[in-house]
Amino acid sequence: MSDHPVLRYVSAGAWSLVEPLFSQRAKDLLIKLIDFMEIDVLPSEKLFHAQIPTHPPEARWASIPPILETLRDKAKKLGLWNLWLSGGDFQGMAGGQGGGLSNLEYAVMAEIMGHSAILAPQATNCSAPDTGNMEVLARYGTSEQKEKYLVPLLKGEIRSSFSMTEYGVASSDATNLRNTTALPSSSGKTLSVKGHKWWITGAGDPRNVIHIVLAVTDPKNPSPHKRHSLVLVDPRAKDVKIVRPLTVFGYDDAPEGHCEVVYDGVEVDVDGGVVGGKAGLGRGFEIIQARLGPGRLHHCMRSIGIASRALDILLQRVSDPNRKTFGKYLKEHGTVLADIAHSRAEIDAARLLVLAAARRIDIGGAKGAMQDIGIAKFTVPSMALKVIDRAMQVHGAEGVSEDTPLAYYYASLRTLRYADGPDEVHIQQIGKNELKRVERLRSRIERIKKESDKLLNEHGKVKARL
Amino acid sequence: MSDHPVLRYVSAGAWSLVEPLFSQRAKDLLIKLIDFMEIDVLPSEKLFHAQIPTHPPEARWASIPPILETLRDKAKKLGLWNLWLSGGDFQGMAGGQGGGLSNLEYAVMAEIMGHSAILAPQATNCSAPDTGNMEVLARYGTSEQKEKYLVPLLKGEIRSSFSMTEYGVASSDATNLRNTTALPSSSGKTLSVKGHKWWITGAGDPRNVIHIVLAVTDPKNPSPHKRHSLVLVDPRAKDVKIVRPLTVFGYDDAPEGHCEVVYDGVEVDVDGGVVGGKAGLGRGFEIIQARLGPGRLHHCMRSIGIASRALDILLQRVSDPNRKTFGKYLKEHGTVLADIAHSRAEIDAARLLVLAAARRIDIGGAKGAMQDIGIAKFTVPSMALKVIDRAMQVHGAEGVSEDTPLAYYYASLRTLRYADGPDEVHIQQIGKNELKRVERLRSRIERIKKESDKLLNEHGKVKARL
Amino acid sequence: MSDHPVLRYVSAGAWSLVEPLFSQRAKDLLIKLIDFMEIDVLPSEKLFHAQIPTHPPEARWASIPPILETLRDKAKKLGLWNLWLSGGDFQGMAGGQGGGLSNLEYAVMAEIMGHSAILAPQATNCSAPDTGNMEVLARYGTSEQKEKYLVPLLKGEIRSSFSMTEYGVASSDATNLRNTTALPSSSGKTLSVKGHKWWITGAGDPRNVIHIVLAVTDPKNPSPHKRHSLVLVDPRAKDVKIVRPLTVFGYDDAPEGHCEVVYDGVEVDVDGGVVGGKAGLGRGFEIIQARLGPGRLHHCMRSIGIASRALDILLQRVSDPNRKTFGKYLKEHGTVLADIAHSRAEIDAARLLVLAAARRIDIGGAKGAMQDIGIAKFTVPSMALKVIDRAMQVHGAEGVSEDTPLAYYYASLRTLRYADGPDEVHIQQIGKNELKRVERLRSRIERIKKESDKLLNEHGKVKARL
Amino acid sequence: MSDHPVLRYVSAGAWSLVEPLFSQRAKDLLIKLIDFMEIDVLPSEKLFHAQIPTHPPEARWASIPPILETLRDKAKKLGLWNLWLSGGDFQGMAGGQGGGLSNLEYAVMAEIMGHSAILAPQATNCSAPDTGNMEVLARYGTSEQKEKYLVPLLKGEIRSSFSMTEYGVASSDATNLRNTTALPSSSGKTLSVKGHKWWITGAGDPRNVIHIVLAVTDPKNPSPHKRHSLVLVDPRAKDVKIVRPLTVFGYDDAPEGHCEVVYDGVEVDVDGGVVGGKAGLGRGFEIIQARLGPGRLHHCMRSIGIASRALDILLQRVSDPNRKTFGKYLKEHGTVLADIAHSRAEIDAARLLVLAAARRIDIGGAKGAMQDIGIAKFTVPSMALKVIDRAMQVHGAEGVSEDTPLAYYYASLRTLRYADGPDEVHIQQIGKNELKRVERLRSRIERIKKESDKLLNEHGKVKARL
Repeated sequence: MSDHPVLRYVSAGAWSLVEPLFSQRAKDLLIKLIDFMEIDVLPSEKLFHAQIPTHPPEARWASIPPILETLRDKAKKLGLWNLWLSGGDFQGMAGGQGGGLSNLEYAVMAEIMGHSAILAPQATNCSAPDTGNMEVLARYGTSEQKEKYLVPLLKGEIRSSFSMTEYGVASSDATNLRNTTALPSSSGKTLSVKGHKWWITGAGDPRNVIHIVLAVTDPKNPSPHKRHSLVLVDPRAKDVKIVRPLTVFGYDDAPEGHCEVVYDGVEVDVDGGVVGGKAGLGRGFEIIQARLGPGRLHHCMRSIGIASRALDILLQRVSDPNRKTFGKYLKEHGTVLADIAHSRAEIDAARLLVLAAARRIDIGGAKGAMQDIGIAKFTVPSMALKVIDRAMQVHGAEGVSEDTPLAYYYASLRTLRYADGPDEVHIQQIGKNELKRVERLRSRIERIKKESDKLLNEHGKVKARL
Repeated sequence: MSDHPVLRYVSAGAWSLVEPLFSQRAKDLLIKLIDFMEIDVLPSEKLFHAQIPTHPPEARWASIPPILETLRDKAKKLGLWNLWLSGGDFQGMAGGQGGGLSNLEYAVMAEIMGHSAILAPQATNCSAPDTGNMEVLARYGTSEQKEKYLVPLLKGEIRSSFSMTEYGVASSDATNLRNTTALPSSSGKTLSVKGHKWWITGAGDPRNVIHIVLAVTDPKNPSPHKRHSLVLVDPRAKDVKIVRPLTVFGYDDAPEGHCEVVYDGVEVDVDGGVVGGKAGLGRGFEIIQARLGPGRLHHCMRSIGIASRALDILLQRVSDPNRKTFGKYLKEHGTVLADIAHSRAEIDAARLLVLAAARRIDIGGAKGAMQDIGIAKFTVPSMALKVIDRAMQVHGAEGVSEDTPLAYYYASLRTLRYADGPDEVHIQQIGKNELKRVERLRSRIERIKKESDKLLNEHGKVKARL
Repeated sequence: MSDHPVLRYVSAGAWSLVEPLFSQRAKDLLIKLIDFMEIDVLPSEKLFHAQIPTHPPEARWASIPPILETLRDKAKKLGLWNLWLSGGDFQGMAGGQGGGLSNLEYAVMAEIMGHSAILAPQATNCSAPDTGNMEVLARYGTSEQKEKYLVPLLKGEIRSSFSMTEYGVASSDATNLRNTTALPSSSGKTLSVKGHKWWITGAGDPRNVIHIVLAVTDPKNPSPHKRHSLVLVDPRAKDVKIVRPLTVFGYDDAPEGHCEVVYDGVEVDVDGGVVGGKAGLGRGFEIIQARLGPGRLHHCMRSIGIASRALDILLQRVSDPNRKTFGKYLKEHGTVLADIAHSRAEIDAARLLVLAAARRIDIGGAKGAMQDIGIAKFTVPSMALKVIDRAMQVHGAEGVSEDTPLAYYYASLRTLRYADGPDEVHIQQIGKNELKRVERLRSRIERIKKESDKLLNEHGKVKARL
Repeated sequence: MSDHPVLRYVSAGAWSLVEPLFSQRAKDLLIKLIDFMEIDVLPSEKLFHAQIPTHPPEARWASIPPILETLRDKAKKLGLWNLWLSGGDFQGMAGGQGGGLSNLEYAVMAEIMGHSAILAPQATNCSAPDTGNMEVLARYGTSEQKEKYLVPLLKGEIRSSFSMTEYGVASSDATNLRNTTALPSSSGKTLSVKGHKWWITGAGDPRNVIHIVLAVTDPKNPSPHKRHSLVLVDPRAKDVKIVRPLTVFGYDDAPEGHCEVVYDGVEVDVDGGVVGGKAGLGRGFEIIQARLGPGRLHHCMRSIGIASRALDILLQRVSDPNRKTFGKYLKEHGTVLADIAHSRAEIDAARLLVLAAARRIDIGGAKGAMQDIGIAKFTVPSMALKVIDRAMQVHGAEGVSEDTPLAYYYASLRTLRYADGPDEVHIQQIGKNELKRVERLRSRIERIKKESDKLLNEHGKVKARL
């Protein structure tokens, strides 16, 4: 195994399994990405935060820290742009020169980007919800929609939101999303979008010019899965009200934010304003299903990186020669060593789950990988939270303050335990999937039992009961 | 991905990662092994147990169930013999035609053998402690020792024990093993082996003709790691006393057993009786180190298989249409589904850790894989115990009885949490290994911090504190 | 707080809360019990086990170790007999001079008896299932039944079984128990008991002369809770077949055992053979409900004692000066200290739960204490298993062998996670109970919210959303 | 047991144990407190938050929400003022009419106050760090110091800080606190206080007029525990710099705050400026030890209340008829019921630990209760965090936002895992305490073993090994 710089980030065991599946180009790109992270992205973190005004509140949402643009320019030059783009639907499209990577290759890169989870994905145009929105537009958009929204998104000129969760509604069961409608307006020529959504990520961003809104367009369709469409709404329209940025713990995530939004009768026309035009009517559910698989895994990939960075921070703290307590360096306490070892093992195991799921997508598509993605989805955030919590604890009070990124990481990852479906939904789903094995299992076991009984008879032994 | 029967046993995610690293021969062998398991081994389990007398006690240790010999003959014919043998040290040796598999390939096979953890390893001559003993003899034995012990072991004609743990001594720190000696007898021509050992696996087996005993031969050597040698003792000698089989949660594991053994002045000659002859004197510690790495992983591989079988048993039970409680099938209870999902995820993650460690051995040898092996060593048995415990719980009382194999599995796997070093030792070791990263980490972080400060200065921002 | 010897066993915190609720008599009895434990019971444990033959199998069930009788005689003389007996139903009855203790007082004594969980309860006639059976007979038996069975049970002359769990039936939902019947025989004068039960504790005991069998006597009763009666069956009758003792892990618990039993048409007459005679017909469910409450708590009390003893054993082991590993005594390892501290805290917390539940029975009866008993029921065994597991782990292999009592304790306590209802049933029940609070909670919260809104209005503040 | 309104807050089991230890006055006060909470405090929470300006930043620290003063006035009138005050050191002092409650009685009240953890303790003058500071001044202050600071604190006219944690220093080992000094100034008449502290709770409060600062006054004293004194510093002095409020998970806790503070050569005179005057020199460590015990327990009491409120919030959410997912109300999901049951059990167990510790203080003083306090200290916050986390999870995204108090609770309680000593320190300490039992344990066990061996001999049985 070559001494690839990736070994600074990824366990030798994992790399030994996946290296043979990496193209030479991907290995080279990985080196470039690591350099970009260490030379450009990580050193820019503090400046990025310093460039966001602390007050007045409205100033926090008015502009984007200039350092981010600097990083984005550099990423483009380095060919580290749209790495998540595997080609396929985007081929030949202006701005569509992405990574062309396999999901497995991208998984390793996304993990490394997770070491600077706020900056790196944005710097490389690999951040949610834009990536998922670009997939939706590429696969289902009309050519005008692609021209108007997909191309500038690919170029990183605009940003977008995905507007799904409804205020006051148990949205983890998507069939509950019934209160946002896009019904024919009185004129009959347009649809009038009315609804109250929240947790609309990126809706605070000044660059945001498009919300993809899940709305009921056919309320009487007998199938509850055919009533919705995805509607394109310009957030600058007068009937869109950004009510407030919601906070996560005490963080407002300016300038992107997770906002509460009211659509108060915004007019959109069917051809331009429904994803896929008239043909897209009623296909809302179908499209969001397709959108979620790889997106869930992208979150997991980055989360592994966040957990790894938390462990790095922990390691440095417990090795700090100024941090002696009760006659020992922190790293000499047996319980600290145990925390480190468990964190190491848990990160390594979770990464392998994510890599296996990514590989499964490469082989069988997102649909074939649902079991592996689901397992990663409910395993990774909890794991990462444990690691971060241990890192906080060795820091004492400093660990929960703004002087380390740990509390912010914790808050961010805590949201992943319900985003794109709460853990419980995925857990129940995996449990049910697993039960599908029973039929074949039982017939195998019965065959074995029959043979076993035959053998016992032949040898004059009492037949066992069970 | 082909629809290989291995997918009945191994998650699609794991297989998708390792399949490209499997030779065609290994894939074919895997099919053969699965057939052998389902057609021969699994149906023979009950007969095997029925062929062990229940009393008088001495009868339990007097003979080997005939069905085992039947299985061994078949395994030889099928080429499923000595699968663990990778070639190397054994090439050209009588009986030395083993699997010639990579550790990764063998890992998958060993897991599948774990589905019948008592029978399958013995049936294929892949069981501990013989495999480790064969490695010791192949690498360090004299040619006579190879002829006398290694060849019959490879052929499966005899069995062996590894005699290390001392009675009344904290043996997890091997430097504590000071009470068993092999010092020159009065004649000066032989060594007299004296010591009190216990937990000597296989010492109850009637086929056992050789104990490899760790004993002090050079008590005054200044290095505590050069005082020991491995001494070959025939357990049938008059000065060897098999005191008793020890029980594990009430099980005596007849006819193999884990015995307490007293060596009461057994005479061995230096050339024939010390592994490696005169040249082997003082090399006891060096040799056992080399012995442990892959052996630890073999245990992990099989444990994954045991956990998988426990989950299979759980799935069948909760799907049993006769097991309705409070108006629901067991499988309809949300907590049962959660147990299943967590078991699935934990098994899948643990398997990937084991596969990664096996791959690391293939690339860098056991030494290069110590970190990955260590992580697997302390992760897998605890994981498997959790899965088995859940399986027991859904069975109620039946789960702890002899009517399912679960309690026996639990007892067996519980021993792995200290065998070959207790979890705690491995955990502390991994913690320490991880701390070795700090030096490089710190220099990287300092470089990043310097860059960050420079950027802040350039942009007129207050230098952040940390 | 006096320096009562109970402080060797019970935390000062717990004692400080309950001492004011102890009568002087109970405090004195407690001292006597502790002396009896330390002078008589604990030193007899090894002899008790040594007096049970190891083979042939039938010998293990043929007699009771004589030392037990010695202890029982002494306990009677010391007034430590039938301590569980609170008076009430037993007053004035031959042999009915019990402890007359409150449940709280008995709870502390039962915990201390748990330090020798096999011997002490039997030595003091406080062991299951006899105690529960005596309660049943005292409350519901006819005067003849009391004379014939209750009096000798109170005197400790005979033993009894409670025969409920059915073979092949999900018995945790008692309404599933439909396959054992006691229907009129052809003669019409007797009932013929037919059924297949298992896990009948004490059915192997040579002193056992009575099984209280739950059987369907009125299969067509519209209420599924009125179909059963408790039938008294003499296990020496020819139509009773003790099929086998079941093992728990590898232990057969001779000479008491947990047996599989077939009742193959045993004739009993209605007046003598149904608990309560004719009036008892159809009251089986009512009676077993009454039986279970305090019995569940007795198990919890003893389990606290078992966990405490395991911790004592752990403390001794880690303080053993011969057990130095890697240059440290075991007790110097930080993770060992953490294990000790967590065990201490968990035992102390669990004990308080049990004491609170016992006090609740004293105040409001078993029915009023169901919530507290239920919480103890699912909390205590899991806690104790964790403590025992830690104790095993510091012993290495010895911890799972017959050389410490730990593995046996583990096996015994593992059964409590499903005995008298699996954890899951109690957990769901407590969850549902807790939800009953919602109605009152909601009205309180709504009143508070209304006041809050009023205040906000008065002060010209925007009304909060939630 | 009377149907006391406390049963809305405290489990019946706990109340049944402690009710007999409550005076009638305490029971009556408890009713008053509950009314005050439900009628006044809880409805004022939203207004309190609404009365804190959101910006500019400096405005957040400029004033105290007027509603708080309203509540404080009412509490005084109701006699719910200084409930924590047990009499003793405060008797006869102006403003010193406190609760006169036992610690056990106060524990229950503090838990109930925890249901509004921000407002209720302040409203009743029972909040940290003032309570601990008042104890310090009452016990160790000179009469002038009492007049100047203690009396207004008791009356609630001023607030105070305790300034201990040093910036950049591992403060969990208090002997590390060496960088803040109060050494004779050049004039020789005063001490000059120099140091850099942080996490100074309440230092942002506009009412704060006194910091009690731990500083080295005798750096050369051979005993590291006699080098420090507690120095009284007026935060309005020109050489005191409040650097910044630190955030906890993004919350600044205005207007109290946890601040970074630099003392840049503040002059204090020895008589007035050192707690206890000249006689107090060198007694810093002695005094802070005395301060910590009950204070730690007060935090635990309130934390039980916070956890209980989180469970109440969870119960309401899962019972919300609008929150149906996948055809079920949240409360019908088995895993939700399990979460509820575990939360109920964990809160109940933790409360009992706290009550036992409080009772121990009543009987043996804080020193005698160190073991019980320590166990509560490391058990309660982790427990409460688990309960809050479950409550967050059933709320989805809303649970981490400002629309429920849960994320804020989580952040607050997370700090308790290191405040007043990190969990690890307490865990190690309890482990070591427990080991002190070994000596007596061993002699008891040896006596038992001797008796056991004697019995075995007498009965001709082989002496057991261990």
